[in-house]
Amino acid sequence: MLELSIKGELMPSSPIRKLTPYSDKAEKRGIKVYHLNIGQPDIDSPQSALEAIQNQPFKVLSYTHSEGTAEYRKSLSDYYKNRGLPVEPSEMIITNGGSEALLFCFGIICNPGDEIIVPEPFYANYNSFAVQSGVKIIPIQSKIEDNFGLPPIESFEAKITDKTKAILINSPGNPTGYLYTRKELEKLKELVLKYELFLISDEVYAEYVYSDEEFVSALSFPELKENVIVIDSESKRFSMCGLRIGAIISGNSEIIKRALRFAQARLCPNIISQYAATKAHQNVGTYFDDCRAEYISRRDLLVSELNRIPGVICPHPQGAFYCMVELPVDDTEKFAIWLLDEFNLNGETVMIAPGNGFYSDPNQVKNQARFAYVLNKEELQKSVEILSAALKKYPGTVR
Amino acid sequence: MLELSIKGELMPSSPIRKLTPYSDKAEKRGIKVYHLNIGQPDIDSPQSALEAIQNQPFKVLSYTHSEGTAEYRKSLSDYYKNRGLPVEPSEMIITNGGSEALLFCFGIICNPGDEIIVPEPFYANYNSFAVQSGVKIIPIQSKIEDNFGLPPIESFEAKITDKTKAILINSPGNPTGYLYTRKELEKLKELVLKYELFLISDEVYAEYVYSDEEFVSALSFPELKENVIVIDSESKRFSMCGLRIGAIISGNSEIIKRALRFAQARLCPNIISQYAATKAHQNVGTYFDDCRAEYISRRDLLVSELNRIPGVICPHPQGAFYCMVELPVDDTEKFAIWLLDEFNLNGETVMIAPGNGFYSDPNQVKNQARFAYVLNKEELQKSVEILSAALKKYPGTVR
Repeated sequence: MLELSIKGELMPSSPIRKLTPYSDKAEKRGIKVYHLNIGQPDIDSPQSALEAIQNQPFKVLSYTHSEGTAEYRKSLSDYYKNRGLPVEPSEMIITNGGSEALLFCFGIICNPGDEIIVPEPFYANYNSFAVQSGVKIIPIQSKIEDNFGLPPIESFEAKITDKTKAILINSPGNPTGYLYTRKELEKLKELVLKYELFLISDEVYAEYVYSDEEFVSALSFPELKENVIVIDSESKRFSMCGLRIGAIISGNSEIIKRALRFAQARLCPNIISQYAATKAHQNVGTYFDDCRAEYISRRDLLVSELNRIPGVICPHPQGAFYCMVELPVDDTEKFAIWLLDEFNLNGETVMIAPGNGFYSDPNQVKNQARFAYVLNKEELQKSVEILSAALKKYPGTVR
Repeated sequence: MLELSIKGELMPSSPIRKLTPYSDKAEKRGIKVYHLNIGQPDIDSPQSALEAIQNQPFKVLSYTHSEGTAEYRKSLSDYYKNRGLPVEPSEMIITNGGSEALLFCFGIICNPGDEIIVPEPFYANYNSFAVQSGVKIIPIQSKIEDNFGLPPIESFEAKITDKTKAILINSPGNPTGYLYTRKELEKLKELVLKYELFLISDEVYAEYVYSDEEFVSALSFPELKENVIVIDSESKRFSMCGLRIGAIISGNSEIIKRALRFAQARLCPNIISQYAATKAHQNVGTYFDDCRAEYISRRDLLVSELNRIPGVICPHPQGAFYCMVELPVDDTEKFAIWLLDEFNLNGETVMIAPGNGFYSDPNQVKNQARFAYVLNKEELQKSVEILSAALKKYPGTVR
């Protein structure tokens, strides 16, 4: 029998993908759909990157070094040094987006059956890379009433077994926008040192922090030099998700040595993307400041407007461009489908990401949804009006 | 203990990578090194692709669909249809090079411990993707005296166990340049049908066939619709290895469905690369003919010159741009290092790829080396002169 693998069967299908047919149908019916469901920024990529692509110097679009070009690794190292983090070019392997960095990371540290502890809700694809690598994700729930802050450290300790290899965090986080405090990171530091675990820190939203509180990178703890593995990406930093450039970063030279072997197997990252990302880093100008200002004003609008709707609870996210919101409905997945399939306000509706896709067990939390503020303020305002009207009409609204 | 995984330990280090420090040192001493060791063509990428990159229309370098853009999949489908192979856009998932297509393929069809039979010598990174996926490669040796043709089909049959999931072939092949005949493929067809196996056909060199004999794609057997998985890539076809665009192609819809899940996990292939590859396909002109003519004249030069050196045996490859050559030396790895470290002819030397890296057991075949004809004819002529002089002087030469 031409039987397929259990891995392929277990690979989760994207939770948003489920809704796409409904969204497509709505658009075919002439309904305008505001997409609050995606993590694709609408903000232009940097002019410097676009110009670099236009003027790229290569006649032969050849392989680069498997670990990434010297120029790009230098520019990324400089970027970290400017942030006060002494990351050398030799401490990184450039990858096809943060995605590949995660896949390499799981493969490097885990044998099949090993466990990684992750606070949930978490970025849904952690599940996919875990399945692909034979790794078991052990979730620990963070609570909306705590703003999705770090769960009590004792709850992590209780889950540690001889299979535990790492704790994986994402700050500022997708889907919550929560920013871990120094105090929270100190607790994690003590824990990983005590149990000799790796700390995988997904910092792809590091540039988008809106709080007065500083962003604390896991790389800022010299004691964790051997333990920390940072997942980096240019996707959100420079709004160039489609260039697929990321990195795995660690002061642990054995990690980098192993990552290089994974990198050699797939030959190299994209030559044009590395060239463009290098130029973007060399010409940042006011790009981050401008984006940050725009995201802050969007967040402020969205969060305050959402909290004005009766029954809606939206914590105040301090980074990234998401908020995880509690809605007064029976089931946000059903609600999301209903919004696309049965509802419109003057020919317009919204698409939201059901929250259950960000939990390890999709039946666990049924009344949350992720909103991405990757639309302009006018569209966000419209979206909230539509949502508000929809909640008045939806049969599953809980009052 | 911060212990790393067994996978990372088993991931083979690139066989050529071992020699790089010697090559670097030689170049630092002012020695000119002719690189016959790499699979990176020196031929320019198509003007249409370079212009597409220059004029790319996107201001936001966004994600594309996980399965690839509709435009690129259409252009790749058209390319296959022009070759008489009815491949629909729905029968492919676009990947980060052929590399990712192989990784997806192994993950989709194999559970850890499953086996894939591969004629050797084979492309060294098959080993890496197998380790990454927990798959066991079962090699069957093809012989230089048979031109590296398909080993007797009985030797395949003898290796089939209840763990066997697929046979993996590569035609025209890296490192041998051998082109499987229709008769050989018919034998494989009978075998995979009899034992209900997948036939993974790595056809990334399909455009570079120099024989009067036609190239036979595994896709040309309608009976194998459910069995065949083709690995495709733009890297060699258009000399744009650095764009990292490939595809997994199958008429088996379950394979494509599973591949999509792997693809969704890592979000998408590169937006610029897909745009450039689309334009390359839409404007092929005489590109393939020109490249083919160039490769043929290089092959003819290299093969005849090599065979003139006493003790050197070079079969006549009918495709790709490699030949696997027997040299009259004790050990081609030692010889390759000696060439870089201790030899030069008027300040010039050559770098070759030791053949043992293309066998499952590196101690098995010690007197073969892979030569890539990715240098122009003048440089190839020089290289052979250097090699000939070196063989007269090398202490390990066997007469």
